[in-house]
Amino acid sequence: MATIIDGKQLAKELNKQTQKRAQELIAKGVKPGIAVVLVGDDPASQIYTRNKHRLAERMGLKSDLYRFPTDVKQATVLAAIKKLNNDDDIDAIIVQEPLPNHLDAVAITNTIRPDKDVDGLHPQNLGKLFADQPGNYPVACTPRGIMTALRHYNVDLTGANVVIVGRSILVGKPLLALLNNANATVTMAGRHTKDLHRLTRQADVLIVATGIAHFIGQDAVKDGAVVIDVGMDRLPSGKLTGDVDFDAVEPVASKITPVPGGVGPMTIASLMAQTVDLAEWRRNG
Amino acid sequence: MATIIDGKQLAKELNKQTQKRAQELIAKGVKPGIAVVLVGDDPASQIYTRNKHRLAERMGLKSDLYRFPTDVKQATVLAAIKKLNNDDDIDAIIVQEPLPNHLDAVAITNTIRPDKDVDGLHPQNLGKLFADQPGNYPVACTPRGIMTALRHYNVDLTGANVVIVGRSILVGKPLLALLNNANATVTMAGRHTKDLHRLTRQADVLIVATGIAHFIGQDAVKDGAVVIDVGMDRLPSGKLTGDVDFDAVEPVASKITPVPGGVGPMTIASLMAQTVDLAEWRRNG
Repeated sequence: MATIIDGKQLAKELNKQTQKRAQELIAKGVKPGIAVVLVGDDPASQIYTRNKHRLAERMGLKSDLYRFPTDVKQATVLAAIKKLNNDDDIDAIIVQEPLPNHLDAVAITNTIRPDKDVDGLHPQNLGKLFADQPGNYPVACTPRGIMTALRHYNVDLTGANVVIVGRSILVGKPLLALLNNANATVTMAGRHTKDLHRLTRQADVLIVATGIAHFIGQDAVKDGAVVIDVGMDRLPSGKLTGDVDFDAVEPVASKITPVPGGVGPMTIASLMAQTVDLAEWRRNG
Repeated sequence: MATIIDGKQLAKELNKQTQKRAQELIAKGVKPGIAVVLVGDDPASQIYTRNKHRLAERMGLKSDLYRFPTDVKQATVLAAIKKLNNDDDIDAIIVQEPLPNHLDAVAITNTIRPDKDVDGLHPQNLGKLFADQPGNYPVACTPRGIMTALRHYNVDLTGANVVIVGRSILVGKPLLALLNNANATVTMAGRHTKDLHRLTRQADVLIVATGIAHFIGQDAVKDGAVVIDVGMDRLPSGKLTGDVDFDAVEPVASKITPVPGGVGPMTIASLMAQTVDLAEWRRNG
């Protein structure tokens, strides 16, 4: 019987703190502001964007949405970002992924002001994280939420063997850096990895972000492992599930995140917390 | 019987190319220039600096040394770097490590212009590398040299299990990024790692950068592994050696670097090549 990592409850507590910090800033005349740039009409992106907007409003934050059609020009998107970079009411800028193929996502990312880069994608922020530099800089929100959860549930990372399955810039890579900085021994695996399950079976902490429903079954998990499921997938039945077969893995894990109610709520709560951080950091120089 | 990775020979060939490229630039009126900032009188740093200077002169490059006493002020070092940032004759800036403790090494690194950062330490360069962004940017020279050697000796990295022992910003971390980008499955281990030899015995490619003489013996290496030794250590006898016990490991390895004559010459040859790269990149916008 594993301990269930209750991301929903943890997010609730974090949101309460964030709301309080936002109110304190507002009392000083500073309303933290978040701007989302949304291109096209991907249904999932629209849901994510709406969820962010609703939570931001509930936190008392300013939340603006900039929508562009699928065939928007690169220059138009860059101009919008530059305007937001210079807008003193905006502390956090998100460009919702995925972007249409004709847009240069790298050039767009690199245009966001590093101190408003709430997704932690700008190379300067990613480089500082990778180098474990001191100081304040944003970190991708899913990894940030996972680290908060691991700490809250007293998972000892020093010397732990951690395996991350998935190498994305929003999840796998920043997690790799955060966990290395926490003195874990981390392996990042992807679709090229040979004998993946032999590797995952060695993990004290297994983090899965493949986007493939039930990619990890019981035979891929070590007895007593901590299992973090970043997936948000649909089974053919339409039921929402994760990259981990929860029912099969839960009996052998020591701690495990459910889907939904695990990593997802912590991601969006971390986004709100980091928006308030950015508002504070930018004003404190 | 392992194939010996002949870094000395490989460096010779690379230096020949670099010299040719430098001559072509000089014929166009551009003499690539490298500036080394050296603080204090660490004997090893003085040797490294002298070796860089001699090779640069032999390549036909401009090579300047800026020496400061151990008790130099932070502001003096920063001012020197800013001057070099704006000096159009300087393409590559090195601040020789280690720096005295009273200096803020992070602030110094972050002051170097990213497009003159020949050691690849600036967070913007490190972040681009970690994100696997396209385009031209400098990469730390020891990792760059190791990648050149692995490619030259036809080491297949796709899906290979690679273990890096050592987590430094000049070696372990950029190597981790480069090898991830080459679709290897990489684990970076350090002094917190539990059961390190169990881990190293699983490596198809083992890279060791601990600074501890003969840290890796035969029992720590898988049969047929490729072994890269970044160490440059002295035995009590005074003899120069590596982090790998070469005589013990060579019989089980498939390919192995000697010390000296392996990674060392490739590092300095890569530094020269990258100085010419920087001169070309900066002038081609």
